[in-house]
Amino acid sequence: MNFCSHCGAGVSRKIPRGDNRERWVCESCDTVHYQNPLLVVGCVAEQDGKILLCKRAIEPRYGYWTVPAGFMELGESLAKGAARETLEEACAEIDIGHMFASVDVIDAGQVHVFFTGKVKGGYGVGEESLETELFAPEDIPWDELAFQSGRFALQKYIDDKGLDKGVHFHELRRAKESNN
Amino acid sequence: MNFCSHCGAGVSRKIPRGDNRERWVCESCDTVHYQNPLLVVGCVAEQDGKILLCKRAIEPRYGYWTVPAGFMELGESLAKGAARETLEEACAEIDIGHMFASVDVIDAGQVHVFFTGKVKGGYGVGEESLETELFAPEDIPWDELAFQSGRFALQKYIDDKGLDKGVHFHELRRAKESNN
Repeated sequence: MNFCSHCGAGVSRKIPRGDNRERWVCESCDTVHYQNPLLVVGCVAEQDGKILLCKRAIEPRYGYWTVPAGFMELGESLAKGAARETLEEACAEIDIGHMFASVDVIDAGQVHVFFTGKVKGGYGVGEESLETELFAPEDIPWDELAFQSGRFALQKYIDDKGLDKGVHFHELRRAKESNN
Repeated sequence: MNFCSHCGAGVSRKIPRGDNRERWVCESCDTVHYQNPLLVVGCVAEQDGKILLCKRAIEPRYGYWTVPAGFMELGESLAKGAARETLEEACAEIDIGHMFASVDVIDAGQVHVFFTGKVKGGYGVGEESLETELFAPEDIPWDELAFQSGRFALQKYIDDKGLDKGVHFHELRRAKESNN
């Protein structure tokens, strides 16, 4: 961050009055530009006992498999966001189920939240995907998964057999994991 | 948003290539400035069957009671954020428990996530609080609570008797609720 998005003047790092940590603060109009973690919402969607995965057509992790997931948008709920991502990436309408996994991806400044879902009809290949496929649990390409958070979600979903056994929590840091 | 925080040029609303909704985009360097929902983390912290509330010393809702809660910061997990807010607002060290409520505050562009906690020792009055007090469930000042999301969390906590009965979800919109 170099400039104030409000007035266009320069910004610098300082601790605002009443705060306890450094922020980007405008040197002219004093606007504080907070930076906070972002939410990623994803879905493990099932049909006939198989799980819907997408092969990524974009970076990061181009060509690797993922559950449908992406940044939550303004104006939607967590659950609606997970359903929207499934529609966008896998062209699949789903009945959303329950939240079952939450992963703190600390160094990326993200929280990844996963829901279950049931694919209602067909599916297809969204703009951000190269392929979309239903995998039986034993056929999931574990060595070609894009993200550790999605791997955690898939493992817990399979352990739980898709049933509601509460929310599983996990914490990822780059020091411990080579990718997230 | 008026200016690009990267190069200082003007920004305008447009749909970036490959996207499907309007964003703030720089007219000079093409940087896309995404705006996404923020996470608020809070804690219903208990000691001897009583619940810790803070009377707010800041707007919004100055003078109203709230469970300790605030924006999640970069570098922390959801649970650590909830514990940090309890320390900052109520000067209380806690053992964090389980996540039990998640509220989509749609029109504010926020998701409020609540954990249980046990107060380990004493408590006090943080900089953003006027008072801090332990309330028996029957003494909670329901008519003087600051936020609907905190009200929902307190109700569910009391219904559950603090036990882990999964995560309760709720959706708030300004059209339905006068404050959130």
